[in-house]
Amino acid sequence: MINIGIIGVGTVGQSVCRILHKNRKIITARAGVQLVVTKGIVQNLSKKRDINIMLSNNPDDVINNPDIDIVVELMGGVDEAFAVVKKALKNGKAVVTANKALLAYHRYELQECAKDLAFEYEAAVAGGIPIITALRDGLGANHILSIKGIMNGTTNYMLDAMINDGVDYDDILKKAQDMGYAEADPAFDVGGGDAAHKLLILASIAYGIDAKPEDILIEGIEDIQQADIKFAKEFNYTIKLLGIAKKLGDKVELRVHPVLIPTHKMIAKIDGVMNGISVVGDMVGETLYYGAGAGGDATASAVVANIIAIARQGKSSPMLGFDRPLEENLSLVAIDDIRTKYYIRLDVANKAGVLHSITEILSSKNISIETMLQDQKEDSRANLLLSVYETSEKDINDAISDIKKLNFVHENISKIRIED
Amino acid sequence: MINIGIIGVGTVGQSVCRILHKNRKIITARAGVQLVVTKGIVQNLSKKRDINIMLSNNPDDVINNPDIDIVVELMGGVDEAFAVVKKALKNGKAVVTANKALLAYHRYELQECAKDLAFEYEAAVAGGIPIITALRDGLGANHILSIKGIMNGTTNYMLDAMINDGVDYDDILKKAQDMGYAEADPAFDVGGGDAAHKLLILASIAYGIDAKPEDILIEGIEDIQQADIKFAKEFNYTIKLLGIAKKLGDKVELRVHPVLIPTHKMIAKIDGVMNGISVVGDMVGETLYYGAGAGGDATASAVVANIIAIARQGKSSPMLGFDRPLEENLSLVAIDDIRTKYYIRLDVANKAGVLHSITEILSSKNISIETMLQDQKEDSRANLLLSVYETSEKDINDAISDIKKLNFVHENISKIRIED
Repeated sequence: MINIGIIGVGTVGQSVCRILHKNRKIITARAGVQLVVTKGIVQNLSKKRDINIMLSNNPDDVINNPDIDIVVELMGGVDEAFAVVKKALKNGKAVVTANKALLAYHRYELQECAKDLAFEYEAAVAGGIPIITALRDGLGANHILSIKGIMNGTTNYMLDAMINDGVDYDDILKKAQDMGYAEADPAFDVGGGDAAHKLLILASIAYGIDAKPEDILIEGIEDIQQADIKFAKEFNYTIKLLGIAKKLGDKVELRVHPVLIPTHKMIAKIDGVMNGISVVGDMVGETLYYGAGAGGDATASAVVANIIAIARQGKSSPMLGFDRPLEENLSLVAIDDIRTKYYIRLDVANKAGVLHSITEILSSKNISIETMLQDQKEDSRANLLLSVYETSEKDINDAISDIKKLNFVHENISKIRIED
Repeated sequence: MINIGIIGVGTVGQSVCRILHKNRKIITARAGVQLVVTKGIVQNLSKKRDINIMLSNNPDDVINNPDIDIVVELMGGVDEAFAVVKKALKNGKAVVTANKALLAYHRYELQECAKDLAFEYEAAVAGGIPIITALRDGLGANHILSIKGIMNGTTNYMLDAMINDGVDYDDILKKAQDMGYAEADPAFDVGGGDAAHKLLILASIAYGIDAKPEDILIEGIEDIQQADIKFAKEFNYTIKLLGIAKKLGDKVELRVHPVLIPTHKMIAKIDGVMNGISVVGDMVGETLYYGAGAGGDATASAVVANIIAIARQGKSSPMLGFDRPLEENLSLVAIDDIRTKYYIRLDVANKAGVLHSITEILSSKNISIETMLQDQKEDSRANLLLSVYETSEKDINDAISDIKKLNFVHENISKIRIED
């Protein structure tokens, strides 16, 4: 029998208990041993919960309990969770966590602390999709050329509705909140922060690169308007919020932002609240993993898979998948140096000379226009929608900054990167 | 250092050697140890190969070699491979195989022989897609409700061209052969046999059910015509050759055949020579895995992933993912009892009374028509295209047999199952 202690018995923790009970026969057959939740830690002992386990409000009752073999950390947050998990490892416990923020900040220290102890975190990225196992173990023979993922279901749901039902951003945000897909404070989802945490974890497995959320380019979907969607449709693109990791020689590019992406790509076909991650390996080519990225049962499915693996084999892989440096001298591309194609939306006065002034500025930065659409608005203004060939983040930002100074251009200029 | 012997150094075997050499730095970092191919076994020693390993033509030079830790079986075929692999296990070697036919017939005996030895076979199903790891380990917390997979790239390529480019079956088969996607004798691919082998392996992991190819319903794509595609498009279906496993109470349904499937389903969006497998778990919901199902490098990517896992941890999971019976009293649904919706194509004389006679027969078997299309042909004949509500394999076959006796119906009647 393997004894499990759960720290943080919220939605996911209760699902873990329910799955271990409901599916106990097949889980025992797969784990080769019975798995029992011995204790759960909660903040508020008097809150009603639909589970039947011993509760306490002191994490030490799990961490210091000599009977407990596996500690499941579902408390969330960074600092306190880090302290708790470190203590659990120090006490020789195997650890399973679903805490992406903890890993976004402390994954290398945790790999160091875990040493010969099992430390698993399948649920931290894309919920129920076994992407950690796939990337770390299934694709271990490959240099990973790129990872492009829809790693946040809330924003994918919102973009889908904006694109396919013509709903505006504010309206769909409210609806997502009503349906429980978005938090009361949606900034972490819509701003790309949630996806960034997950991207950093995957990038560590793929490249062994160490970066914090503060180090990378993160933009959200807040500025996307129906005019952008109209342009996208005109040129057979859809719009997705992607986490992107790419290897370019001895550099790695990490970024989270909305992209225009051709509709025929597999990742473009993932709609609604679902997640999907495309991984290109140098040997295997493109593989893609699709499923529910959130929800109690889907997330708990990944947590329980980790528990089964630990019950069966103890430590399998090193936490991030490598024992020695994966690649030497690998560094992050500076944000200013990131190069992509861009789409730009400008709100301009509808009069002669406008386009000429704009193209003059773009040309001075060696930026070439690929396509253009003019979208007439009321009051003698127009949306000017441009796509430009590959250029650097610095050059496009400098150009936009100069264009903003033109007195017939509204300063609200929006850009979306294009991922072909 | 881990020493590897490869039995059968063809396209995949040579790719394994090449990957272990080309990507050796990251592979060593991930495996924690150096992996070296010490010996390869081939039939014809004089054939030119682009690799630099010691070759012999006697499998015993690998199997009985005390220096070799992992035997990679890539010789193909059933009986001889079975003998070789059993002997390797008897000699205490870990085994990696890509041989789906071997597993379709002998997986339970091999699980028995392997006991505490590592036995891995990721490449046997869907080439480079890590579906074995995903299903066996990643979804271990779930009862698997269904598996629906495009497990054969050749037929998916052919159907895609027939549907999207309007090419006829014979023409696209010839093109697939010219491009190297289809064998000179294509029966195993186009007839569904290849997909059936893979389905049986997945069904064992999901359900622990033992079945041989002979026990299940297998139909190929040979009879699909442009008339069927016209009907499919009219009702927003596409046509795919799927391997399907479904759990219905204590019964498991296993079948391989073309299906009409709604275009909005993820599995319907997988085009060209790619593979994709949708797995629905009771906790995680639908997950889907997409990638290259064949090709030397993609297949070798999976073989090397298995080698890395064995180097790192020895035996991880039991071969099929369970130590004790996974589910008791589970049995296979008899082919006659399988129930689905059907589409039927009839070549009929274009005259009064035809439809009446046909509906009378269907009605006598309690089969209800859902939709109908009549497609005028030359010489006063027509294609009558029907879809009917769910009924059993026995009833639809009896009805078709009766319809064939009607003198104004051509006996070439085709049916395709509908998977909503």
